Formats: sequence, C-alpha cells, structure tokens
Amino acid sequence: MRSGVPPLRKESAVIADPLELVREEMALVESRLTCAVASREKLLTEICLHLVAGGGKRLRPLVALMAFKMMGGTRTEAIVDMAAALELIHTATLLHDDIIDDGEQRRGKPSAYKCYGLTDTLVAGDFLFIKAFEFAGKFDERVVQWTSDACTSLTEGEILQSSYVRNPKVTLKEYIEIVERKTACLFHAGAKIGAYLAGAPDERVRILGDFGLNLGICFQIMDDILDVVGTEEILGKPVGMDLKDGNPSLPIILAIKMGKRKVRSAFEGNGGSIPDLATALEEIKKSGAIARAHGYSRRYALNAEACLRRLPFSEHREGMERLVDLLVDRTF
Amino acid sequence: MRSGVPPLRKESAVIADPLELVREEMALVESRLTCAVASREKLLTEICLHLVAGGGKRLRPLVALMAFKMMGGTRTEAIVDMAAALELIHTATLLHDDIIDDGEQRRGKPSAYKCYGLTDTLVAGDFLFIKAFEFAGKFDERVVQWTSDACTSLTEGEILQSSYVRNPKVTLKEYIEIVERKTACLFHAGAKIGAYLAGAPDERVRILGDFGLNLGICFQIMDDILDVVGTEEILGKPVGMDLKDGNPSLPIILAIKMGKRKVRSAFEGNGGSIPDLATALEEIKKSGAIARAHGYSRRYALNAEACLRRLPFSEHREGMERLVDLLVDRTF
Repeated sequence: MRSGVPPLRKESAVIADPLELVREEMALVESRLTCAVASREKLLTEICLHLVAGGGKRLRPLVALMAFKMMGGTRTEAIVDMAAALELIHTATLLHDDIIDDGEQRRGKPSAYKCYGLTDTLVAGDFLFIKAFEFAGKFDERVVQWTSDACTSLTEGEILQSSYVRNPKVTLKEYIEIVERKTACLFHAGAKIGAYLAGAPDERVRILGDFGLNLGICFQIMDDILDVVGTEEILGKPVGMDLKDGNPSLPIILAIKMGKRKVRSAFEGNGGSIPDLATALEEIKKSGAIARAHGYSRRYALNAEACLRRLPFSEHREGMERLVDLLVDRTF
Repeated sequence: MRSGVPPLRKESAVIADPLELVREEMALVESRLTCAVASREKLLTEICLHLVAGGGKRLRPLVALMAFKMMGGTRTEAIVDMAAALELIHTATLLHDDIIDDGEQRRGKPSAYKCYGLTDTLVAGDFLFIKAFEFAGKFDERVVQWTSDACTSLTEGEILQSSYVRNPKVTLKEYIEIVERKTACLFHAGAKIGAYLAGAPDERVRILGDFGLNLGICFQIMDDILDVVGTEEILGKPVGMDLKDGNPSLPIILAIKMGKRKVRSAFEGNGGSIPDLATALEEIKKSGAIARAHGYSRRYALNAEACLRRLPFSEHREGMERLVDLLVDRTF
C-alpha cells in the first residue's frame, strides 16, 4: 500500500524511485502518522489530517529510513516511530509558518490557517510537536537530545530569518546559516538518528549527519528556485511568495547582489502590487541568478554525494545517491 | 536565594509558607529555567525571560517538588528537571494564549505578544515546549507518556474551550471538562510524576495524581473568581477579561444560569463597550454567583485534602494541606 505517497519522479523508467526500497516501512510511517493525530477533539484531528493526509513528499522520513537501511538496521519499529516524529515536527512548523506568513495556500488547497483560523491552527501545531516528542521521547538520551537540538534549530532559524525579512543586506553566509537551521537540521537529525538506531559506529553516524545537512541545504535552495521558476500547480501555492513576503531566498539575494533594483525594491516591500512582483520575478529569471543558485544547489549535492562515497556500497546507498540526483534536478 | 519567587502569603505568621519546605530545590528550578531559555538567538532568550523571569507563582513546580518530598524522594536532580519542565510547558501555553486572546497584559506588564509581535512570540512558545521535552524526554517511558498526555490535554482543552467561546449553552459538566484539560492536567501530572520519581508505590502515585487534579480545578475556579472580584494590581492584567473575551468562566456560567441577562449579553459579545462590561461584572457580583463558585472551589479543595489524608502524615503533607488552604482562599 502506498497510502497516498506520490513517487518522487513519475516519468523516468531509467532512474528507479528510491521510495521503492523502503516501501513497506513508509506504509508503516503513514499508519503511525494517522494514529498520532487521533484526538478526543475531532477538530484537532481534522486540522492535522488536512495537512498530513494532504500529500507531502515525506522526504524527512525517507532520509531517516534510508540511512537506517544503509547501515543495516533491522529494528524497523524504532525507526518508523522516529521517521513519523520527523514528519510530525515538519508538519507542526508548516502549520505555524502559515500563521506567521499569513499563507493562503499549501499543497494545492487553502491553508489550515485559512480554513480553521488562528486559534485552532496554532493549537494543532502545538499538538503535533507534542505527538512528535511522545514518539521521540521513548528513545535514549542521545536521540532525545538530537531531536531537541533539531527542533531548537528550527525555532532559532525562524527567528534569524525573521530578523532578515525585507533586509537586502543579508549575506550568503547568513542565508546558509538560516537554511541550515530552518530546513537542513531535520534532514541532518533524520540521517544521523537513522544510522544510530541501526547501530552504526559513531564515525558513520557523523558522516550520515553531514550527508543530511548537505542534502537539506540542496533541497532548500531548489525550493527557493522553484518559488521563482515553478508553477502554481507544481508548488501547490502561488509563485513568488518569498519575494512577496520579503523572505530572503537565494535567487533574491543573488539578484540583489547583481544590482537588480526592481528585485530589491519588491523585496523591500516597496510597490508590492502583483504587476511589480511579476516584473521583479522576470528580472530574477533574466539576471542569471537562477543559474547561479543552481550552482550552489549542485555544490551541496556534491558534498552530500561525497559523504555517501565514504560509506560501503549497497543497494540503499545507491538509492540515496539517486535521491540526491532527483532533488537537485527536481521540478516538484 | 529566593530567585525572585514571591512568598505565597506575605501577611500570615500563623500559616507558614509551603515554599519554605522546598526552598533549596526551588532555587535549583529557577536556575534550570534560566539555563533552559539560553539560545544562540538573544531575542528568543529575551522573550522567554520576559515571562519566565517576570514573576509567576511557580505552583506547578511547587506541587511536583512537594509530592516528591512527601513520598520521601531523594534524587533531587531528577525532580528539579521535571519541575522546570512543567513550568516551561505552562509558560509556553501563556505565550500562545496571549496570541490567541490578543492579550495586552500579563503579570503586570505588556504581554510578550504586544512587545515582540506574532512571529517571535509564537516561535518562542514552540521553543519553550521543545526545551520542556528536552528535560522530560530523558526520563523513562511512563514519565514521557504522562507528560505528553498532560500536554495533549492542554491542547485539547484549548480546542474544547474555543468551541464554547461566547456560547451561553455551556454546561457545568463541560466547564469542568475544559478546566481538567486546560489547567488541572499539569497539576495532575506534576503531583503524579513527583511521587513516581520518589519511588512511591502505584497506589500513592495515583492518589497524588487525584490530589493534583482536584487542586488544579480548585485553582482555576479561584482564577475565574478573581477575574471578576480581583483588582488589576493583583491580577497583573485588567479585570473582566473572561467576559470580554467570551471565555466561559464559572461565575459567568452560574450568573447566566441564574438568568442574568446583562451577563449573558456581554458574554455573547453584544454591546462589548467598557460600561457594558462593568455593568455585567456588577451583575455577576450581586447575583450570588461568586459565592456559589466559591462553594465549588471549596468542594474541590476538600477532595484534594481527602486525597492527602490517605497518605502518611509528614511535614510535607502538612505543607501541601497548607497549600490547598492558601489557594482556596487566595486573593493573588
């Protein structure tokens, strides 16, 4: 049973879908997610399912499961709980992000915030954090600490990002710092915990952690690129939201550094009309910022692959390499 | 060192302050709280300290510490971590509550929400939940489950309450259900975990859990009463907020059941002007609803005391009885 998880790439017969390698475990994750959001308050379950059952790539569970399998893990029950915990944490942040960004759409439908309002969406996010910790809290102290560290990073990344909203002085170094904390930390924790729960030695746990961090950064850069060059259908939300909200994405930062004044102006929130935004997005596309951003994304993909090559060859390592390829070229 | 924790009752020489019995442990809790909110992002620490260092009665830690001592606990380090975790959870809910209720004031100063805005306050609440679970997650599976159950109840209570906002049909039974979930569950968890960490047998753990639940309900009813009869100075926020926000408090419910139409109208949000609210508050005071609410508060205090009497006499049991007396008569 695929339980509604879409394949990572539909059209290719040559490159197999890495999900195939952990299909059974992913079905267990799906059922753990459904159980986790069951509440005495039906509304709470409904809000959580609005997002949890509404698609999502399940990348964080996938990375954790694959790292676990790569390291020869067999205690499936344990890794399934942790993989579900990571997805719950991710979903909690999406619910809260929609409140923060006043997000209208998510995964191709109205956001939970728009459907259910502030109170219930905020509380549903808290509920998901709590459920995630219920799962994670049953592991040993190291796993609890790593999970907590990743979640702490998420919040610190959000605060750091909010201090750079509409601030054109944000540097590339600061951007990477935000991305490490806001996105990559969960990939980092997932890969590390997957390896650890498989009983891998410390050095391999560390290497897989590094792999996750680099993959996460690559993934976020692609997310930033798609926000400019994607379509509403692919994104599940309107294009250009980073520019509209003043969130410092890589193409925006690069275009501003190239002296693109319409981009800078739109990012700073001057003239935020739809035609102004469209013009600024066109300016980013023509500036070469997208190609440069792709260059960064590829660099982090190469770092991730270099980590993998330090680990023994296996079917799952090959699957993980495939995942990197899919993410760095992704259009989804 | 008292670390800024105010005595529970300043004026009485006859009834000693129960805090005296756990003064050393409470100082350790204070220092754990200060450590817990340390973040790379100074703003995050600042927002958390705005509330954590801004007073607060530390009742949840107090109940946990006292239950631990009553049961002869000696592993102080463990109970201090859990006591701090309970206060962090409570503080996280206060930050999120201020967003939900658009709260202007808290503990005698502008709320974090008014000082720091939506994004940073929401994220700071998440951060405190995470830090609490970092502490709680290091204990065994039962403690993790109880903590998670209490937090789940908090969110479910919030959702349940929000479904009764401005709804005059709310019954007493529904009110108690809300209070059990929204407030009493943390007292319940604190007392239960305190006893468990002290190594008490299951029956005593259960009795102390019951004690905490009853004390928590008594406490919340008094909170509801003070919202009507208190002063801004005592409350640290304006009086009548429950009526203004349409939150179903016990005096409001009782006055509506007595047919008080101005109360009903103000609660339903019709004519929410300041004079209308003042008139409705006067109507509650004259209706006898306060005396009846006091009766309920006393009933739960008696239940709590009955639980204590089932446990062996000790200095700490006496202190806990004193705590019940102080809370049921409290004007703070």
